[in-house]
Amino acid sequence: MGALTIWTLDWVPIGPRGFVRDLRLRWACEEAGFPYTLRTVAFEGRETNHLAQQPFGQVPFLTDGELQIFESGACVLHLARKSERLMPRDALGEAHTLQWAIAALNSVEMVSVPWWFLKITGAEPNNLTGWLESRLDHMEKVLTDREWLAAERFTVADLLMVDVLRVPDVRAFGDRPATEAYINRATNRPAFEKAHADQMAHYDAADERER
Amino acid sequence: MGALTIWTLDWVPIGPRGFVRDLRLRWACEEAGFPYTLRTVAFEGRETNHLAQQPFGQVPFLTDGELQIFESGACVLHLARKSERLMPRDALGEAHTLQWAIAALNSVEMVSVPWWFLKITGAEPNNLTGWLESRLDHMEKVLTDREWLAAERFTVADLLMVDVLRVPDVRAFGDRPATEAYINRATNRPAFEKAHADQMAHYDAADERER
Repeated sequence: MGALTIWTLDWVPIGPRGFVRDLRLRWACEEAGFPYTLRTVAFEGRETNHLAQQPFGQVPFLTDGELQIFESGACVLHLARKSERLMPRDALGEAHTLQWAIAALNSVEMVSVPWWFLKITGAEPNNLTGWLESRLDHMEKVLTDREWLAAERFTVADLLMVDVLRVPDVRAFGDRPATEAYINRATNRPAFEKAHADQMAHYDAADERER
Repeated sequence: MGALTIWTLDWVPIGPRGFVRDLRLRWACEEAGFPYTLRTVAFEGRETNHLAQQPFGQVPFLTDGELQIFESGACVLHLARKSERLMPRDALGEAHTLQWAIAALNSVEMVSVPWWFLKITGAEPNNLTGWLESRLDHMEKVLTDREWLAAERFTVADLLMVDVLRVPDVRAFGDRPATEAYINRATNRPAFEKAHADQMAHYDAADERER
């Protein structure tokens, strides 16, 4: 494996701190014990200043030696190939990790993020509410029966699903005790705590530089 | 590899025919030359009748010998591991295929499907329109420079991205010639044509049985 560099923004407002998606990569590296360097692109002009690295103007992206890769979900799955701590190596465990990782990105987040966007932009009614409710209810049923989504252990499927479900508006939408316990179980892991604290410290330091 | 079975619905209305996501799996199998069997779950009661196989009540899902896997994106990436025709085997080609496959599912489809849902449910204004426009404009720029997304050849990244972009309302939203040429390039492939014709024939046969 080459040297890992996680790229993110040099500053963000208070609101998204703790939720910028570089956290997914930091968390994966902490779980696997992979050292990494952090580098930044400018918040100002972010929609166009790094299109060569990320064609939608988003963060994060990752360099792994000579290789560069964007999309937080792809970066996490790329890292998962390098450590059994992130994903089991047997065919069944790997397939189920992949299936639940994609479920997080394409079945749950595909509804939760646009729902949240409608909410903050004041759409009335929010036409995605019924759909989100159905997705979260299905997840609650799944999580009532198991501690982790795949292979009876923590994997990157949980990392991605928890990062989708822990968004405050989503988490506060309805009373789903199995989901809440699952989020707590995952975010109490030392690797999450370290990744989260490091992201907060990164943006706090940016405020200090501004003064 | 075990015997492949693609599971889908036994019937759907005219509207979604040609767009049910079993097409992604059929298309991947046709590209790779993998034979498969088709099996069905009932359209009636679909929201609860196969939750043991698919926890959101969706189709498709795939059996590969003893292994079962859901989420069309995960099934396609699972199949891609088995054939170089679907994904290059070198680290760079594989990483870029993964990155663009996830971009299709988590950056483009995460906006296009909820936007489409708001459109058909009559949300006025559609608060996702600006976001969709931005995503499609970024894709247009990318596709102006290249024929295929990853590794300078057709991969499952194109399969997924094209399946997202060819949805009629999305395709008709704005004039983006490079995107249009890309969709045509992909859907003119014999493997897509066969997969599409087979899905149409499957649902036409279901109508015949009804009579």
